[in-house]
Amino acid sequence: MFHTDCPARDMVDHVTSRWGVWVLISLRRNDLRFFELRESIHGISEKMLAQTLRVLVQDGLVWRKVEPTTPPQVTYGLTDFGREVGEPLTELFDRITHRLSADTAPGT
Amino acid sequence: MFHTDCPARDMVDHVTSRWGVWVLISLRRNDLRFFELRESIHGISEKMLAQTLRVLVQDGLVWRKVEPTTPPQVTYGLTDFGREVGEPLTELFDRITHRLSADTAPGT
Repeated sequence: MFHTDCPARDMVDHVTSRWGVWVLISLRRNDLRFFELRESIHGISEKMLAQTLRVLVQDGLVWRKVEPTTPPQVTYGLTDFGREVGEPLTELFDRITHRLSADTAPGT
Repeated sequence: MFHTDCPARDMVDHVTSRWGVWVLISLRRNDLRFFELRESIHGISEKMLAQTLRVLVQDGLVWRKVEPTTPPQVTYGLTDFGREVGEPLTELFDRITHRLSADTAPGT
């Protein structure tokens, strides 16, 4: 049913990778500079963030804009396709957050 | 923003784990026996499937039913919470599949 040769499976694996999820959810709120992304995702290393962004840019989910300042400012944001994919991921996160906060609410 | 101490982050990581995604999407269609799950997810080992199911059962996303036959039949399915979470994952998969098939359609 879900074959390793299936291109959609590869892309789902990138989107749901260890750090890909959090990059996409973060960028769904705002375009962000590299260091802002790094700060928003606790525990990610520079190396892992750079690698995750490279894959998401290659997949056409994230754009990268370099401004010719000194030093150059690099900003990342979601493409239309990235927004399509980021929406159900955010929904997933919201549903889990909602369920966990209901479970730990006082008196329940 | 997304802190490693956040319980929602742990659960999102389980749900979007290497194999968790495919187990949840598969079970969203039907309740399945262990061997059926294994067959539906190309490339998964018995060990990884057992480990993934154990985490998802602990998280309250998947139920496990053992029928007292010889040998015992073990069936897995989604809890209500598993359905809540499986829905946006399936949506994610459908959107990616749709986009990739549009990109590779003849004449585009």
